[in-house]
Amino acid sequence: MHRVKVRVVEDALDANNTIARANRDDFDRNGVTVVNLMSAPGAGKTTLLERALGGLSVRAGVLEGDVQGSLDADRLAGLHLPVVQLNTGNGFGGECHLDANMVRSALPSLPLEDIDLLIIENVGNLVCPAEFRVGEDVRIMVSSVAEGEDKPLKYPLMFRACELVVLNKIDLLPYIDFDMDKWAARLEAVHPGVHTMLVSARTGEGVDGLRDWLAALPERRLVEA
Amino acid sequence: MHRVKVRVVEDALDANNTIARANRDDFDRNGVTVVNLMSAPGAGKTTLLERALGGLSVRAGVLEGDVQGSLDADRLAGLHLPVVQLNTGNGFGGECHLDANMVRSALPSLPLEDIDLLIIENVGNLVCPAEFRVGEDVRIMVSSVAEGEDKPLKYPLMFRACELVVLNKIDLLPYIDFDMDKWAARLEAVHPGVHTMLVSARTGEGVDGLRDWLAALPERRLVEA
Repeated sequence: MHRVKVRVVEDALDANNTIARANRDDFDRNGVTVVNLMSAPGAGKTTLLERALGGLSVRAGVLEGDVQGSLDADRLAGLHLPVVQLNTGNGFGGECHLDANMVRSALPSLPLEDIDLLIIENVGNLVCPAEFRVGEDVRIMVSSVAEGEDKPLKYPLMFRACELVVLNKIDLLPYIDFDMDKWAARLEAVHPGVHTMLVSARTGEGVDGLRDWLAALPERRLVEA
Repeated sequence: MHRVKVRVVEDALDANNTIARANRDDFDRNGVTVVNLMSAPGAGKTTLLERALGGLSVRAGVLEGDVQGSLDADRLAGLHLPVVQLNTGNGFGGECHLDANMVRSALPSLPLEDIDLLIIENVGNLVCPAEFRVGEDVRIMVSSVAEGEDKPLKYPLMFRACELVVLNKIDLLPYIDFDMDKWAARLEAVHPGVHTMLVSARTGEGVDGLRDWLAALPERRLVEA
């Protein structure tokens, strides 16, 4: 029974990669650089975007993935950027991740020709989102210090699958037991040399660095192409 | 293609429920009350167990579900209870939840005849764990105030599927923006009347209440049977 299950999943992944490539072609045709933004529930992805996308020097858009509701998209509406909500709640309990086909279904709602940088905010989850490419150029994961210093070891694929790890809520460090050296060593163990930023979306500390990093992505992509 | 996908998932769920029932029969035969403990990554399930299971008046055991590693099981070893680690990392990125068959595979490693209360600590995830019964009597979910007050609306199935919602890390309330009334109203909207406890696993505040609630479960189960 296990063998059958694995086979089905592999077929699904292959279909996913085919559609991800089609998404990527559409993004390329429109000159859009795409970020897949992932984290556990409540790590602060949306608050970070509220902070980092304001005053961004490139034209950004956001695709919000959630099981249900449009709370996050509503919060971002104030930024006056194109924001599209994508709900995964069809079926029984809802999908715990975005896949390429879901993203593809949202593309007609996005003005790709008016966007340089598209942020796809994935469903809050540290496992499955890392397994499904959606056509992105880079992957960013956000981890909150409140989640604890053991997360890189417990969810290694997620920490390994990304190009940038943003450690958020550092304003809480004085009030919790979080050993930064231990966290950094564990991250290094699962993803040697990965780029890391320490930020507080609440106070704004470190967000300028993230904004600059995001703004440089479209140019970097042109150089690499 | 969507229709096919839904059918496959329903078949899988049926198989899961069949095995969950078999697990339940084994638990019943041995007089074991079973708790399915769920939360997002880093909400504090293991720290809560470290606090609540010490000095518990019934004989407890723990089944630790993680994608990879045995960090949590190692932490609980100091409690001198039967602790079994169950890793879901087979296949590609690992399963994001426990299902009845995984739990069944661990049963031979557990001394069920010496346990009154078995805590199954699920994989940290607010979506899929709520969709898979494993043979439990009750479900507890833990949410951390650091995750924000919007979580009941964003992950309604999880908050609806449990009998007890434990709001953890209340020691952080002075340092974050968390509107308790708003959270409570949102929880009430998705799961009217659900029992709630406010605790801090770090300081111990409120943990006595959780310990008493857990200790009363085996007796309550006998009364209901």
